[in-house]
Amino acid sequence: MNTELTHFDQEGKARMVDVGDKPVTKREAIASGKVLMQPTTLEQIVAQQIKKGDVFAVARIAGIMAAKQTATLIPLCHQLPLCSAAIEFTSDPKSGQITIVATTKSNGSTGVEMEALTAVSVTALTIYDMCKAIDKEIEITAISLQKKTGGKSGSFSRNQ
Amino acid sequence: MNTELTHFDQEGKARMVDVGDKPVTKREAIASGKVLMQPTTLEQIVAQQIKKGDVFAVARIAGIMAAKQTATLIPLCHQLPLCSAAIEFTSDPKSGQITIVATTKSNGSTGVEMEALTAVSVTALTIYDMCKAIDKEIEITAISLQKKTGGKSGSFSRNQ
Amino acid sequence: MNTELTHFDQEGKARMVDVGDKPVTKREAIASGKVLMQPTTLEQIVAQQIKKGDVFAVARIAGIMAAKQTATLIPLCHQLPLCSAAIEFTSDPKSGQITIVATTKSNGSTGVEMEALTAVSVTALTIYDMCKAIDKEIEITAISLQKKTGGKSGSFSRNQ
Amino acid sequence: MNTELTHFDQEGKARMVDVGDKPVTKREAIASGKVLMQPTTLEQIVAQQIKKGDVFAVARIAGIMAAKQTATLIPLCHQLPLCSAAIEFTSDPKSGQITIVATTKSNGSTGVEMEALTAVSVTALTIYDMCKAIDKEIEITAISLQKKTGGKSGSFSRNQ
Amino acid sequence: MNTELTHFDQEGKARMVDVGDKPVTKREAIASGKVLMQPTTLEQIVAQQIKKGDVFAVARIAGIMAAKQTATLIPLCHQLPLCSAAIEFTSDPKSGQITIVATTKSNGSTGVEMEALTAVSVTALTIYDMCKAIDKEIEITAISLQKKTGGKSGSFSRNQ
Amino acid sequence: MNTELTHFDQEGKARMVDVGDKPVTKREAIASGKVLMQPTTLEQIVAQQIKKGDVFAVARIAGIMAAKQTATLIPLCHQLPLCSAAIEFTSDPKSGQITIVATTKSNGSTGVEMEALTAVSVTALTIYDMCKAIDKEIEITAISLQKKTGGKSGSFSRNQ
Repeated sequence: MNTELTHFDQEGKARMVDVGDKPVTKREAIASGKVLMQPTTLEQIVAQQIKKGDVFAVARIAGIMAAKQTATLIPLCHQLPLCSAAIEFTSDPKSGQITIVATTKSNGSTGVEMEALTAVSVTALTIYDMCKAIDKEIEITAISLQKKTGGKSGSFSRNQ
Repeated sequence: MNTELTHFDQEGKARMVDVGDKPVTKREAIASGKVLMQPTTLEQIVAQQIKKGDVFAVARIAGIMAAKQTATLIPLCHQLPLCSAAIEFTSDPKSGQITIVATTKSNGSTGVEMEALTAVSVTALTIYDMCKAIDKEIEITAISLQKKTGGKSGSFSRNQ
Repeated sequence: MNTELTHFDQEGKARMVDVGDKPVTKREAIASGKVLMQPTTLEQIVAQQIKKGDVFAVARIAGIMAAKQTATLIPLCHQLPLCSAAIEFTSDPKSGQITIVATTKSNGSTGVEMEALTAVSVTALTIYDMCKAIDKEIEITAISLQKKTGGKSGSFSRNQ
Repeated sequence: MNTELTHFDQEGKARMVDVGDKPVTKREAIASGKVLMQPTTLEQIVAQQIKKGDVFAVARIAGIMAAKQTATLIPLCHQLPLCSAAIEFTSDPKSGQITIVATTKSNGSTGVEMEALTAVSVTALTIYDMCKAIDKEIEITAISLQKKTGGKSGSFSRNQ
Repeated sequence: MNTELTHFDQEGKARMVDVGDKPVTKREAIASGKVLMQPTTLEQIVAQQIKKGDVFAVARIAGIMAAKQTATLIPLCHQLPLCSAAIEFTSDPKSGQITIVATTKSNGSTGVEMEALTAVSVTALTIYDMCKAIDKEIEITAISLQKKTGGKSGSFSRNQ
Repeated sequence: MNTELTHFDQEGKARMVDVGDKPVTKREAIASGKVLMQPTTLEQIVAQQIKKGDVFAVARIAGIMAAKQTATLIPLCHQLPLCSAAIEFTSDPKSGQITIVATTKSNGSTGVEMEALTAVSVTALTIYDMCKAIDKEIEITAISLQKKTGGKSGSFSRNQ
């Protein structure tokens, strides 16, 4: 495994790493994160959903659109057309916790971890934005890469 | 304090809340977050910094630029020209923990919390991107609003 | 009323018109448009909505986000921070017709018609995108300004 | 032919459809639309063109640039690098009608209809913007896909 | 006059300078630049213009649109809605030299120099792009601020 | 070699040239430019760098990010995912001159000259932005293509 910060050359200058000689392969990444809030806030989100005002639907769209903007946001990230992007939510009313899982896929010469992580982050920020009027203590936490396949560095699964 | 999700109308339809009648006042927000990594990864970042290859400098620029893109990323967020944006880092080599603090200011009719939170999130994602080749277990955590001033809803300070 | 194409100077060169001396006033614009499809396609959209897969919710978000991108899309359009943006749908299952109404507001020195018209257009394009797999004959039609208030050129209401 | 809204999964959640297994083929799409205005407005556009202030030239550039932004505007649309984009105008002075035809091409695993339709829409909006000072009744109409080739769903030609 | 690089704090950290306390005043900036090419290349541009294929018209639109993207491109630049933007060309067929002059205006609390300079740069790059097939030796040169008015630092006129 | 302005069709209409039939090959481009300033200004940049406030680091990130935005800025430019992007600086304290060299690579069916030239231009503009408070006479000059490889038009090296 790499032991160098590859985004810097020998003189320490930041650069976009050259992936031009890496083969194009199927890539997939799964990232997740959590949004912690007052249980009463989560109750409101669910109540709103029943009234068809769906916080999850808005946040999902924001996350998918952000995944497509990853290379615009992350300075040294390669532009990578996504084959697919999907976002799942599970929520635990008791603890006021929402778990976000984003899955991104691409046929490319570098991985799609950053796309999945960016999707999770912006999905979470959008939930925050829609709930901040009633709960400013909301916390976004545990954003991490769960799984990665494709590419010469091989597969990765996070140690739980 | 509001007890409704203001981003939805009575029929539950998402909308950009009308802030046209709110006075223009000085606004400030401070948000923070943490990036957890192997202490050896943080050592590398510091070593790289000595070699003038500065992960923090790249991540700081990414965070400031992202703050200016907040309304492009968060669907129902208002476009808010920032008067200033700044990002601070403190790192604890022992625990392999970096703390990010973003401060954003604007003279506007709505708050700049989302700008500060977006800055923290993209700064953290950029650190992840630059270190992922050597440490895929990095976790982004504890993204939250610390302080908010200006506007009729008044000041807010997070309960520690 | 103006009888000149103000986006060109005397020599016919395109330019962004100078609005620097125009007073800042409350502006509002209402635009509308229609999406015509097979009644069976509209049935599917409604059925999907019941299954919580809401075409209207996705299209609404796309339209609101596009309104904020108007000055990026329309070359000579001024950047205008919106105070609010909202999109309404009414659908006629018999004729397979969806009517989109977008309302945009700003406190500025130029109107928000283009923001409302852009919101309608992108909302309609998003409906097309989500339904094109089952109905490629969908037609977007009757995009027009319905109402405009604020600014020295005064109010406007479309002749029906 | 598809009878499902493919942008939703079984549980009705919106997603970017996975095109990762679809072959890369030559794709082409032709879309069109109309802009209806007072004949006197169209006369002005033509007069302006003679003075070298070309509404059509500005609108054409706007449409081509918008085609490249399609995936940024349409939430579930794939990023698709275009091989070419072109926009044609024909105008009928008597009826005050401009017809816009956009042709887009790509070598990809999904179609370029949305790119052509987005190009037509933004071209039309730009004409509206440049003429709105003299004619607010302008209407954008009949935006539709005319032709589509490439991909497993095969060719499509609109029934006139 | 300032003798410090204000974009860095005492510890040398980059930041967006706080302009929140600066008064909102009328700002104007004029920047210019040159594009040097083979006289035969410039002849072609002029010939093309007669054929209504106007390199200048395309480049002008690109420059105006880029001016509106300045804060997206320049990391520490404030978002500044422009009141107007205009681009002039003069060309000297003998020497194969095109001079670009961009004028930008805003009512804001910081200057619009960067908007004018960005407009000139992207206008020049667009000319290069449209002519590179016939002349790869084209050079963009002498991009500089000519004049600046408004703001407490007062007016500036470049020493010729 | 081409003797026509290929971005226009026979009738002189601007268009994105069709590259759909061109083979995908490795492409590389090297562009350069200069920033001229008071030697005392360059001294400050170097002094600041020692204080870890690195103008070069910020400008480099801006240039790399801009390279990825080339097709958004240059109207008729194709979207081209970059395999790599790097920016080098050399500075001559005596003459107050900074030389910027940008290298961009892609595997595509059209060249990456515009990406390299855009990177140089935005890098230079960012240096200007960070130094303008102390030196408004700064000039950006000599932006040109140095070298180009790949593609059927073959290699190019600028005549010095």
